[in-house]
Amino acid sequence: MYGVERSFIREILRVASSPEVLSLAGGLPLADLFPVDEIRAAADRVLMQDGASVLQYGASSGDADLRSWIADRLCSHHGIPTTPDEVMITSGSQQGLDLCAKLFSDRPIAFEDPGYLGARLAFQASRVPLIPVPLNDAGPDLETLEQAFDTGAAVYYGMSRFQNPTGRSYPAATANAMAELLMKTDCWMIEDDPYGEISFGETDSPLVAQRVPDRVIYLGSFSKSVAPSLRLGFIRAHCSLLEHLEPIKQATDLHTSTLIQSILRELLTGGEFNLDAHLSRICRTYQAQRDALVQAIETLVPGARIPWVAGGGMFLWASLPVPTEELFGYAIKRGVAFVPGQHFYLQEPDRSTIRLNFTNVSERLIPDAVGRIAAAVQGM
Amino acid sequence: MYGVERSFIREILRVASSPEVLSLAGGLPLADLFPVDEIRAAADRVLMQDGASVLQYGASSGDADLRSWIADRLCSHHGIPTTPDEVMITSGSQQGLDLCAKLFSDRPIAFEDPGYLGARLAFQASRVPLIPVPLNDAGPDLETLEQAFDTGAAVYYGMSRFQNPTGRSYPAATANAMAELLMKTDCWMIEDDPYGEISFGETDSPLVAQRVPDRVIYLGSFSKSVAPSLRLGFIRAHCSLLEHLEPIKQATDLHTSTLIQSILRELLTGGEFNLDAHLSRICRTYQAQRDALVQAIETLVPGARIPWVAGGGMFLWASLPVPTEELFGYAIKRGVAFVPGQHFYLQEPDRSTIRLNFTNVSERLIPDAVGRIAAAVQGM
Repeated sequence: MYGVERSFIREILRVASSPEVLSLAGGLPLADLFPVDEIRAAADRVLMQDGASVLQYGASSGDADLRSWIADRLCSHHGIPTTPDEVMITSGSQQGLDLCAKLFSDRPIAFEDPGYLGARLAFQASRVPLIPVPLNDAGPDLETLEQAFDTGAAVYYGMSRFQNPTGRSYPAATANAMAELLMKTDCWMIEDDPYGEISFGETDSPLVAQRVPDRVIYLGSFSKSVAPSLRLGFIRAHCSLLEHLEPIKQATDLHTSTLIQSILRELLTGGEFNLDAHLSRICRTYQAQRDALVQAIETLVPGARIPWVAGGGMFLWASLPVPTEELFGYAIKRGVAFVPGQHFYLQEPDRSTIRLNFTNVSERLIPDAVGRIAAAVQGM
Repeated sequence: MYGVERSFIREILRVASSPEVLSLAGGLPLADLFPVDEIRAAADRVLMQDGASVLQYGASSGDADLRSWIADRLCSHHGIPTTPDEVMITSGSQQGLDLCAKLFSDRPIAFEDPGYLGARLAFQASRVPLIPVPLNDAGPDLETLEQAFDTGAAVYYGMSRFQNPTGRSYPAATANAMAELLMKTDCWMIEDDPYGEISFGETDSPLVAQRVPDRVIYLGSFSKSVAPSLRLGFIRAHCSLLEHLEPIKQATDLHTSTLIQSILRELLTGGEFNLDAHLSRICRTYQAQRDALVQAIETLVPGARIPWVAGGGMFLWASLPVPTEELFGYAIKRGVAFVPGQHFYLQEPDRSTIRLNFTNVSERLIPDAVGRIAAAVQGM
């Protein structure tokens, strides 16, 4: 019997769910921003209009009209030339990772380090060995990556925009060099982009998929732009890869709920809801929360350092003058939670690091949360 | 890169989707029976009442109230003593298979033969070796199974009620002997029961989980009782197993859509919908369709033999006087589709067998469909 590592972060989230704790630990969007009424109207319309057909078994690759909508948006908003037959609907982008793990399970995967814990667990659940590729100021270390490709890895996993946990984006030069390396080696990148729509417009945040779309398996998500409970995401990949991924998707769960896909399709195309206007509102709110967090840390926590101010997404990465794993117990007693950065590393961690979520505590309460962290640092 | 076998059945379904073809090939429930209006009302109520909370990230194990409802029903309707913490929600019972594949991927799985193709593909996607256990008139061959357990298998996979593809149920004596073997060897059974609610009440159809609940991982589904596009099923297992399965579920897709779970919970508990009355209607309709199919085969197809008349579920298994794989081309030309039985075998198949779905062609059209098969047999 096989045990997947029980995530320490889930234990943190359990502790942090107590009502007196201000939690900067999780990765939850602000629920106040969910388009509840619009989703209700869309659900009503699809069940009224399409009835039984949205309740029957559906295609493994997903709803054709939703795939077309996604292809158009990848072209118009993300600079990735895409046709509908290059898109497959998944149950959140987390499932995209699971399907990739099955597709590539005969070779190790080169893995951005520190990197997204959920991806690490998805690959480990399929027993895929991981080779760490350190993330430096300039992005992933391409020399280490080339060595990993030379020694058997066929794929690199990373987030090029607003990374979880660090909030970093790859500089354009790194994205270009990555694209060249993929072309030269005939290897692939899994470019995980769950926060791509949550950009504050401050930086140019290039995608590797814009440069070499056929060498990239691009993962997108509606969890941050619409609502996470829909569990809707997608894979954009070359048809020759999707041809292998489709039977894997079928073996995994037959297909993603047709009803949920139809509700989202109706929301996006029904005319009452404007995704771009909705995203503007989300981004304005999150940007203000990020600013409040940065300011509070710089003002209230002596010795704290912010190496990279996230230009989007949901997370800020900082370095504190104390080991953050030990700090955690002191912080919980003062009613604030975060994730010690060491949990995101594959190899030797920087134990001074900390991941802070800025989207789920209101702008008004952020100074209080950071004040509690400062008090915990002083109380150690 | 890893290629999961592309299902021949999907190719059949493609051919069979042409409007002039009467299809006995797929496994689709009759869409006329879906409770469309009740689902629409339930969706409206949960979004009105619970709003943002049903759109946020949720627990990996699933909605607590839905798990309680399932535990109660397993006790009251299926004779399996169950508490809510022994239930985990999955994205259809197909996902239950995927999670089990990951849990048991270090050992071979003993596999009912002929058996459910979707299970075979799920295990193969996680590279789990399969040991065939022949299904005879008395159910699975327990001597072969004991040998498989002796030589390293920890788990047996099978459907004890209304099996896909054969429609057979295990006799009570076999279920008892299976329970004893599991106790004696400390091995597990994955008891896949997607058709358990679709029983015509003609036979006593025992479950192994009723005898030894702690040695069984029981998989249930709402695809046949409510609607397949919800993609909602569940695992019932001992807490010590669920403790391993929960982080695997999280690594696979975080959790099943909270919105969909809430809609189903509201449908089942909201008071307007009566599942038992709904199931009576489904079962009456399907039983009449099965009867029509049995009668048409016995009347119209010379040399056909029905070894086992399914007491529930969606499939009838028959033996024809010709090789059914060759027959398929002749049948399609006459406008009827089925699945040649050989595709369900792990080892040497009986090439005279055929799987016929009786739920998706109306009772009125079934004689016409079987007449076309008879004409194809004569035309070979």
